[in-house]
Amino acid sequence: MTTLTAADLGALARGAAVLGTGGGGDPHIGRLLAEQALRVHGPVEIVSVDDLPDDACVLPVAMMGAPTVMVEKLPSADQIAIAVRTLAKYVGKTPTHIACIEAGGVNSTVPVIAAAQLGLPLVDGDGMGRAFPELQMVLPTLAGIEATPMSIVDEKGNRGVFDTISNAWAERLARSATVDMGCSAIVSLYAMTGAEVRASFVPGTLSQCLATGRAIDAARRTLRDPVAAVVDRLGGRMLHVGKVVDVQRRTTTGFARGDATVDGLDTSLGRLLVLRFQNEHLVAEIDGAAVTTTPDLIIVLDTESGEPITTEALRYGQRVSVLAAPSDERWHSPAGIELVGPRYFGYDLDPIRALETV
Amino acid sequence: MTTLTAADLGALARGAAVLGTGGGGDPHIGRLLAEQALRVHGPVEIVSVDDLPDDACVLPVAMMGAPTVMVEKLPSADQIAIAVRTLAKYVGKTPTHIACIEAGGVNSTVPVIAAAQLGLPLVDGDGMGRAFPELQMVLPTLAGIEATPMSIVDEKGNRGVFDTISNAWAERLARSATVDMGCSAIVSLYAMTGAEVRASFVPGTLSQCLATGRAIDAARRTLRDPVAAVVDRLGGRMLHVGKVVDVQRRTTTGFARGDATVDGLDTSLGRLLVLRFQNEHLVAEIDGAAVTTTPDLIIVLDTESGEPITTEALRYGQRVSVLAAPSDERWHSPAGIELVGPRYFGYDLDPIRALETV
Repeated sequence: MTTLTAADLGALARGAAVLGTGGGGDPHIGRLLAEQALRVHGPVEIVSVDDLPDDACVLPVAMMGAPTVMVEKLPSADQIAIAVRTLAKYVGKTPTHIACIEAGGVNSTVPVIAAAQLGLPLVDGDGMGRAFPELQMVLPTLAGIEATPMSIVDEKGNRGVFDTISNAWAERLARSATVDMGCSAIVSLYAMTGAEVRASFVPGTLSQCLATGRAIDAARRTLRDPVAAVVDRLGGRMLHVGKVVDVQRRTTTGFARGDATVDGLDTSLGRLLVLRFQNEHLVAEIDGAAVTTTPDLIIVLDTESGEPITTEALRYGQRVSVLAAPSDERWHSPAGIELVGPRYFGYDLDPIRALETV
Repeated sequence: MTTLTAADLGALARGAAVLGTGGGGDPHIGRLLAEQALRVHGPVEIVSVDDLPDDACVLPVAMMGAPTVMVEKLPSADQIAIAVRTLAKYVGKTPTHIACIEAGGVNSTVPVIAAAQLGLPLVDGDGMGRAFPELQMVLPTLAGIEATPMSIVDEKGNRGVFDTISNAWAERLARSATVDMGCSAIVSLYAMTGAEVRASFVPGTLSQCLATGRAIDAARRTLRDPVAAVVDRLGGRMLHVGKVVDVQRRTTTGFARGDATVDGLDTSLGRLLVLRFQNEHLVAEIDGAAVTTTPDLIIVLDTESGEPITTEALRYGQRVSVLAAPSDERWHSPAGIELVGPRYFGYDLDPIRALETV
């Protein structure tokens, strides 16, 4: 068991935004919110997945909605704890642990806030090992675990609970409520026992986020290349280095969707890389041919600082490096590809792994 | 205390559809559903508002959605009872009585089904004295009573609970969920004590529905004019007699919206009457000038049989009589007009009462 303090949050949020593959929320905002919670409530205990009691009552919590909106509409002071309490009351259980459902600049720090406010330990793991745009897109779905009962809470004080016949129905009803609530909301869902967490989670995600964030910091301090440090840390590869020359963005049906074009500076890597995103980067194409697709990770970093750039922060003129890294192997099962593969998102492509040679 | 049996349901549904002013659901379907429940579970006790214990736990139940859809997508056998049970569990109370939130062919019979299935008495009253399209449009809203916690349940087995900061927010979130659920759902809401029901309900609505339905039956049997019988019963007046020559209809944002034109056969009543509806009839115009508006009742009956015609059943060629009748006086208060007056629905009109001389 380790302890997370305010001093860790910069590295945590930065590393989480790397794994967030463009989504999962802005790391600066995630850091500020969680730092405040830790200052008020003290540090949070981190519990490894292996140390969870089988009968633990684990309640994951996350922000749901369009990242383009999340950067302008912050959660209220008590919204996150209310989401957890609303679900706990509905299921009639006392939570023993809080967990992250995905990795991301906000979605790895919102659970820190919940854990701090409720005085509960936080599980070192998450439901994806990355971020995905829809709430059924978690490894617990592949393990047959139900997303609902789930709670959904807005910053104004509106609350809802959904109890659905499938995780896809949970996504559908919660997405509409999120849109009504102003395109962002806090949700608590996938209530699980410790045994279920062990069977379905990606273990060690918080540790991985911290290590990745610290690797970026360390490279900067020692004047090494922070982008190369991330490639090493995640066992990935460089896809492209260049300048953002076009960003098409629209916030529709509760998602931040769009495309970004990166003009290559090093022509040996191809000339134009296009990123297709729905909150997260889903497909990377170089000169018209897909080179990496979901479920593997497509990551955009500032070339000089190694700072992860979320999809809502992509801007003309940014000098960026685009990397690919492997996802959890369970995502490459037939059921995993059906849930989060390119065809689910409307791309007529077989999945292309990060380390495939094209 | 009286008892409602299967033999009463034809008159109940017919009279309720008259008060439903075009909305509230198809009386034939409402009758069939409730007859089946009474055959299985036995008759339902009707309790007058005056006889309710102050501390009674009254749970109203209704169908929410577009009447155009309700006629094709019926509730499942247990959906109605599940809606009541879901709300009861969330508020942690044992219901003692069921109630109607509005008068209508389905919304006066869905509560009969709930009462029969749950073995509970049914309150003789409702929250409007008519039907309105949005869920905050009830007299309990004017009395400061909260719509939520509310439950919402579909025929597939999806359930939700909303707990909102206002009754308008309850409408917004529940409407989106209703649309996702296929444009119709069962809701239980406005959980009230007996004292609150007495302070905010229209008393005697079920009795009024039964008497109106029986007046139509009796007139037919004795070869008197059933339309005149309804006018007498409700203290209303005839607006128009004619033939439906045009119906514009669209099911949008979860409502059945449109306009219908009735060409006058008796030119002394004007030539063209136009009905503007959103589930319910909201404005009646004759030759371009509004003659009656919400909150008063605009009712369309088959001229020969006196059968009420709901907005979704309006068809070219029908011979219809259009009547106006007064609504509960509380709807004419400034707060009532703000909640359900013509301007709320986008008509730049002061309300025109049923019995005003134009």
